[in-house]
Amino acid sequence: MDEDCVVFAGTANPALAAGVARELGLPLGACEVERFPDGELTVRLLEPVRRRAVFVIQPTAPPVNEHLVELLAFADACRRAAAERITAVVPYFGYARADKRTGRREPITASLVADLFQAAGIDQVITVDLHTPQLEGFFHVPVDSLSAVPLLCAALRDSLAPGTVVVAPDAGRVRMATEYAQRLRASLVVLHKRRTSATATEVTHLVGDVRDRPCLLVDDMITTGGTLASSVAALRGAGAAADVRAAATHGLLLPGARERLIQAGLQEVWVTDTVRVPEIDWPALHVVSIASLLAEALRR
Amino acid sequence: MDEDCVVFAGTANPALAAGVARELGLPLGACEVERFPDGELTVRLLEPVRRRAVFVIQPTAPPVNEHLVELLAFADACRRAAAERITAVVPYFGYARADKRTGRREPITASLVADLFQAAGIDQVITVDLHTPQLEGFFHVPVDSLSAVPLLCAALRDSLAPGTVVVAPDAGRVRMATEYAQRLRASLVVLHKRRTSATATEVTHLVGDVRDRPCLLVDDMITTGGTLASSVAALRGAGAAADVRAAATHGLLLPGARERLIQAGLQEVWVTDTVRVPEIDWPALHVVSIASLLAEALRR
Amino acid sequence: MDEDCVVFAGTANPALAAGVARELGLPLGACEVERFPDGELTVRLLEPVRRRAVFVIQPTAPPVNEHLVELLAFADACRRAAAERITAVVPYFGYARADKRTGRREPITASLVADLFQAAGIDQVITVDLHTPQLEGFFHVPVDSLSAVPLLCAALRDSLAPGTVVVAPDAGRVRMATEYAQRLRASLVVLHKRRTSATATEVTHLVGDVRDRPCLLVDDMITTGGTLASSVAALRGAGAAADVRAAATHGLLLPGARERLIQAGLQEVWVTDTVRVPEIDWPALHVVSIASLLAEALRR
Amino acid sequence: MDEDCVVFAGTANPALAAGVARELGLPLGACEVERFPDGELTVRLLEPVRRRAVFVIQPTAPPVNEHLVELLAFADACRRAAAERITAVVPYFGYARADKRTGRREPITASLVADLFQAAGIDQVITVDLHTPQLEGFFHVPVDSLSAVPLLCAALRDSLAPGTVVVAPDAGRVRMATEYAQRLRASLVVLHKRRTSATATEVTHLVGDVRDRPCLLVDDMITTGGTLASSVAALRGAGAAADVRAAATHGLLLPGARERLIQAGLQEVWVTDTVRVPEIDWPALHVVSIASLLAEALRR
Amino acid sequence: MDEDCVVFAGTANPALAAGVARELGLPLGACEVERFPDGELTVRLLEPVRRRAVFVIQPTAPPVNEHLVELLAFADACRRAAAERITAVVPYFGYARADKRTGRREPITASLVADLFQAAGIDQVITVDLHTPQLEGFFHVPVDSLSAVPLLCAALRDSLAPGTVVVAPDAGRVRMATEYAQRLRASLVVLHKRRTSATATEVTHLVGDVRDRPCLLVDDMITTGGTLASSVAALRGAGAAADVRAAATHGLLLPGARERLIQAGLQEVWVTDTVRVPEIDWPALHVVSIASLLAEALRR
Amino acid sequence: MDEDCVVFAGTANPALAAGVARELGLPLGACEVERFPDGELTVRLLEPVRRRAVFVIQPTAPPVNEHLVELLAFADACRRAAAERITAVVPYFGYARADKRTGRREPITASLVADLFQAAGIDQVITVDLHTPQLEGFFHVPVDSLSAVPLLCAALRDSLAPGTVVVAPDAGRVRMATEYAQRLRASLVVLHKRRTSATATEVTHLVGDVRDRPCLLVDDMITTGGTLASSVAALRGAGAAADVRAAATHGLLLPGARERLIQAGLQEVWVTDTVRVPEIDWPALHVVSIASLLAEALRR
Repeated sequence: MDEDCVVFAGTANPALAAGVARELGLPLGACEVERFPDGELTVRLLEPVRRRAVFVIQPTAPPVNEHLVELLAFADACRRAAAERITAVVPYFGYARADKRTGRREPITASLVADLFQAAGIDQVITVDLHTPQLEGFFHVPVDSLSAVPLLCAALRDSLAPGTVVVAPDAGRVRMATEYAQRLRASLVVLHKRRTSATATEVTHLVGDVRDRPCLLVDDMITTGGTLASSVAALRGAGAAADVRAAATHGLLLPGARERLIQAGLQEVWVTDTVRVPEIDWPALHVVSIASLLAEALRR
Repeated sequence: MDEDCVVFAGTANPALAAGVARELGLPLGACEVERFPDGELTVRLLEPVRRRAVFVIQPTAPPVNEHLVELLAFADACRRAAAERITAVVPYFGYARADKRTGRREPITASLVADLFQAAGIDQVITVDLHTPQLEGFFHVPVDSLSAVPLLCAALRDSLAPGTVVVAPDAGRVRMATEYAQRLRASLVVLHKRRTSATATEVTHLVGDVRDRPCLLVDDMITTGGTLASSVAALRGAGAAADVRAAATHGLLLPGARERLIQAGLQEVWVTDTVRVPEIDWPALHVVSIASLLAEALRR
Repeated sequence: MDEDCVVFAGTANPALAAGVARELGLPLGACEVERFPDGELTVRLLEPVRRRAVFVIQPTAPPVNEHLVELLAFADACRRAAAERITAVVPYFGYARADKRTGRREPITASLVADLFQAAGIDQVITVDLHTPQLEGFFHVPVDSLSAVPLLCAALRDSLAPGTVVVAPDAGRVRMATEYAQRLRASLVVLHKRRTSATATEVTHLVGDVRDRPCLLVDDMITTGGTLASSVAALRGAGAAADVRAAATHGLLLPGARERLIQAGLQEVWVTDTVRVPEIDWPALHVVSIASLLAEALRR
Repeated sequence: MDEDCVVFAGTANPALAAGVARELGLPLGACEVERFPDGELTVRLLEPVRRRAVFVIQPTAPPVNEHLVELLAFADACRRAAAERITAVVPYFGYARADKRTGRREPITASLVADLFQAAGIDQVITVDLHTPQLEGFFHVPVDSLSAVPLLCAALRDSLAPGTVVVAPDAGRVRMATEYAQRLRASLVVLHKRRTSATATEVTHLVGDVRDRPCLLVDDMITTGGTLASSVAALRGAGAAADVRAAATHGLLLPGARERLIQAGLQEVWVTDTVRVPEIDWPALHVVSIASLLAEALRR
Repeated sequence: MDEDCVVFAGTANPALAAGVARELGLPLGACEVERFPDGELTVRLLEPVRRRAVFVIQPTAPPVNEHLVELLAFADACRRAAAERITAVVPYFGYARADKRTGRREPITASLVADLFQAAGIDQVITVDLHTPQLEGFFHVPVDSLSAVPLLCAALRDSLAPGTVVVAPDAGRVRMATEYAQRLRASLVVLHKRRTSATATEVTHLVGDVRDRPCLLVDDMITTGGTLASSVAALRGAGAAADVRAAATHGLLLPGARERLIQAGLQEVWVTDTVRVPEIDWPALHVVSIASLLAEALRR
Repeated sequence: MDEDCVVFAGTANPALAAGVARELGLPLGACEVERFPDGELTVRLLEPVRRRAVFVIQPTAPPVNEHLVELLAFADACRRAAAERITAVVPYFGYARADKRTGRREPITASLVADLFQAAGIDQVITVDLHTPQLEGFFHVPVDSLSAVPLLCAALRDSLAPGTVVVAPDAGRVRMATEYAQRLRASLVVLHKRRTSATATEVTHLVGDVRDRPCLLVDDMITTGGTLASSVAALRGAGAAADVRAAATHGLLLPGARERLIQAGLQEVWVTDTVRVPEIDWPALHVVSIASLLAEALRR
């Protein structure tokens, strides 16, 4: 990491940013984010950025609109202070699922967000396990899409029971589950489901054999836990062993998710720290840091 | 208002939007704004917009970032559905005070917001009593700046005590206070103050004569009420009569503002409905609707 | 269709354009496309376009680069002649499958093509059965995505054997196949496959029951016929009845496709005229015109 | 040539690209261009380009639209892979003659192509003997216009008969012919002609004295050979010696050109390798490589 | 001319603007251009422009930079006031000769001016007898290029002596001279010259027969008169009759031009009013108004 | 100052540019600005700029439009010659006061000028004592706003009479005057005035005590001297001592200013060389060079 770089941490995940800085052997760039009584925010960079390559680490995790505008304000501050290049490090990309219109008169919010990034002067984006690969095409600036799967596999490999099968919760995750299966030398099972509303889905059938097999359900993100819970139920219905675990890159774990997952009987839940993981007392939750992954990407 | 127009209400101030629609003799365009458990939002327009002029009424009042992103999502939905022209009706323009850098490495968030509007496809902006006239220059698209002062003057004229003087709380409001004074045929007094922090100011002197005179303090917005309270104290210190009232276009009235203003001894507070006025039980608060003002601007 | 519109036909599918014009009760706009000995082309509009809404009907079918550049040249000619609005009617959108990067250093050509459209001044796009819905997000201008499925269903309904099941050739076509199934009141079967190279895929399993059932394979496009042929083989392997038919919106039918499909034993192949269907002597091929669908979209 | 550069060869003229790489003492960047059965193409860069200056050598020679789209795909791949700067090395710039409208409703395709270059992210252009100097003004990015005349003059000087006059085939080439004449210390003759159709011209008169003089006809490009042939006829008609030769930067030599030139009685034809010269058995054709010229420009 | 149009006159040629308005049967839009003591200027439109098509008539004649910035300020005022469309009517386009670089490190000022037009929000350009047709390609917005030659021919036809030949002063004007010759049924003579400095040229030879013939020299503009004077001398040297006249679209007639032309012995000089013709006492000068030509273009 | 920079002097203030170059220990980049008889100008850079950081020193002082277009032409020349980065060093920013609309249908010329800068390819701006801080928000590119107040204070400190008070001529200058007062350890007095026309103002009252005190009037610029003169009169009317001096960053000193200031009885007038100070015989005028301030900013 040569010296004309500076890494700032937004407020969305300062612990991750600190980890990245540690990996790089660099202090974080000093900065302040102030929120006024009326909810407006501002950013003050206490570090010179002129002609330097700036990285701002800010997943656009919930509250997504707050974190998004904060990131744009960082970019505006950097641009006006003549930064050489502004890279948004967005390990979790909010609105990624809003990648198409289901009706005729809706926004494609992920595409809008890409436009906003570019309007604010962001020159490059680094992200992790994007929900849809097509998202890169919404951008004109380069997008560096990293995958947390190798790190997750390395971390959970030893804790898996022998004979574990990797389960993709729907057709859209087959590519990701295949990567898990290859890295874990496990076989692959695919659930097929139908979206019944914006937040609920129904498993319609299961491809592969799970009978009496321990299972590792994998997904890109865990939000309410509803998808995972219904997948577990489908696996149980298909005769899977009791040992069902889950791994996902983005552990948003919205309120109620923990309860839902505990009730579903998941033995372990593995996520990374792309978003700030709520500090909850839950031994089954394992968090793997992606700081080294981001650090390596920044070094390039 | 010819028929190829459609007016949508964002969620920031639906009552105002309804009032505008009533004034225009038009129904509001049917639409839904949905907020998901993870805080992401989407917009669904249930009304065709193809080749129609669309108006979206959405003050970017607190929570400003929520309302801002919602407005941008509205614009994106309209643009993709081939609206002929998208006018953002933003009676209160959030971040208006972030119009310059006080240090070297800060955003100019008002300018950034202008860029975001344009990136999202907004073709025109209608706003009311912008904090700084220079803000128009941040936009490439036309900005129609309206003033609520005539409506406020018309509404409060009869309740003023004879001999009331109009008081500008600082030099930046002299232009607005002059307009009040002319319309009310009152004389003008100017307080001068110094900003001592981001939220506090100190009155340093007073120009004009307030001794034993009832006062009408005018401003563009009331947020915490702190500015008004210290202005009242300064007027009292200068021997003003007990009858001090206040008028402001934007009644944000953040939590604590009512108490602060009551304690300051303000007899009446007049605001408009550019932002949704909190429903608080406070007889001294008078709210004047700007629905007719906006309706007239939309008709043009 | 009011009179300030003009519809031009590019050279990619003049018969379709003529059909659209007939449906609209309009003559096609007179124009010439000239190709010089060195392969350069030019366009001459013999019809005034000043302040008129212009539609250019040009699928970017093979030879895709020729047809793409021709479309851009049409747009440039229209823009310079002060057309009010330029709508590219691209019933088949070439490069639609190039919607993501599979490696790190590839183009996202569909996104590039969207940029080229916009650089050339195209204001709106009308297209049919886009390969991926995310493609709309590559555009800033409105994209009107039509579906030929209703027309195809209406046309082939009477020729189907009772008990026919609709078969999706892979997970990506489930949404389209579902629409067929609902319209035809048929049940749905899904094949799952793995891409083994850029042009070859392998069916890995089949979800649903096809034993002794007539089948209707549906897809968005038929290019080499390889995908269909291997799907037919998989259906046969699963005990399907001999009566297997296919329907697809885009009948590219590259050289060799007919032979491949005949050999696979398809009884009927239904396509539309989004691309110019090669004039081949093949009674099993049925072509349904989408002229009425486009005409309706232009009328809006 | 410092090490953070990489030079890619498009498929239009790999031999020239190899020559440039040799001159630079650099290997060409590894890459693949794949053309699918349906005529779509893609590009794969097998060399990292992140933060490197990339040069893509690709004349947009016939088939011009293929080569143009390929070049744009290269640029898109480079941009998305975070190249520092993308320079299109386009020794022959297709559509250069489409630099103005002759009617009211035509494209200016050269200007369109400039827009496409810029939409694809090309940051700089290097080209050779542009047909019109005004073309540079179609670009916002820098255009480096090189001339092959010095190389051609150096190559053919010794083979010219004493007393040879340089002949400009029309008024538009006088500037180029003057440079030849000065470098060869020859006198200058100008033919004047009238374009009678898109591909045919007629010589109307001749300025200067060619009686019994050997002639060197010079032009920027040879396409069908028709212009040269009619110029030779005019020179003969004016009493020129039998020894007539021709030199041109761009030897497109479309099918039939060789026969036409042989029949016209040209003793020698000198061109460069800006475009891939067809491998034809024709001893009169001399090809001078511009690899050193390009290499020097890349080194800057 | 329908009613939602408004025509403003810049200060460069108010008489022409008045003539256009008269032709259109419209009053000119009321406006003020103020120049402050420090040379800054501003524009005030006293006429509403919201949603109206605005035409600003402003040749960018000397002082070119003043008139250019004034035109841009007009456009900015119109854009901010929500004009529907802004058409710059620039009968004389300043900097048109700066259409290419003669060295490596010069501006292409005509291309820059096109960019400035577009940056200021100009949507369309109407111009007359552009110096180079390639200039249109510098613009993305439509350019409507008119010719004053028919008007000039109609005006001067009767005053020409029988047998007059039309003379092009250099190769670049052959196209324009041909149009004169055809309209006047005269034969064509071409002078060839060499530019010896930025302001001086030398006639090198003459194509055609002028012996004892009256001549009409034609050009696009008369600036210092030097080109015309040397052309007259060349004609005299070639034995032309004493009756030599000149016609040009743009009569800039810089100080000294009249003297130079009188001394050269020109019998008549015909120009149009694209630029404000200096009020000089010179009976040989005939000014033909293009007001009707512009009015017709505006009507379209 | 590393070696890949080049500093060019426009014609607006070559002496200042020479001073900056001296401070940097660099020669100025060789260049020519030519103005043709018709008032058009061009620029020729005689120094290579390819991949170098270019600085062009050009205050847009009167004649503002000439100097503005010249600066844009410089930028265009640099951009086309592939400069790495173009920084406009504009110590005096013309049109800065045109930062808002006072009516509905006026330009915001300062915002327009910002757009023109960016259209011409200017990447960064360095300026001194901008009239309004909001101006920075008109730009997307970084603006480096310097202050000449420290230099002026250092220069004039010793010549001030003891007890001098710093006087702000209006509320808009309080911030600047406060900086003077702090640096000079003087107390602050504020005049309040009302603009009565575009060029005239009237002092309405005075805050602070000037009785028998020497005064230093400070402002950002001196144009006609009218503001200063009326301020002096107000100070005299309030009983100030005879010793009144003035300091301002930008000494435009339009014709008549000197006489007006002499007549007003100013003892000394201090300005900097942001604009070329007219060479007038006036001992009271002291000019402080900002060359070192700019040199330091360029070095960064």
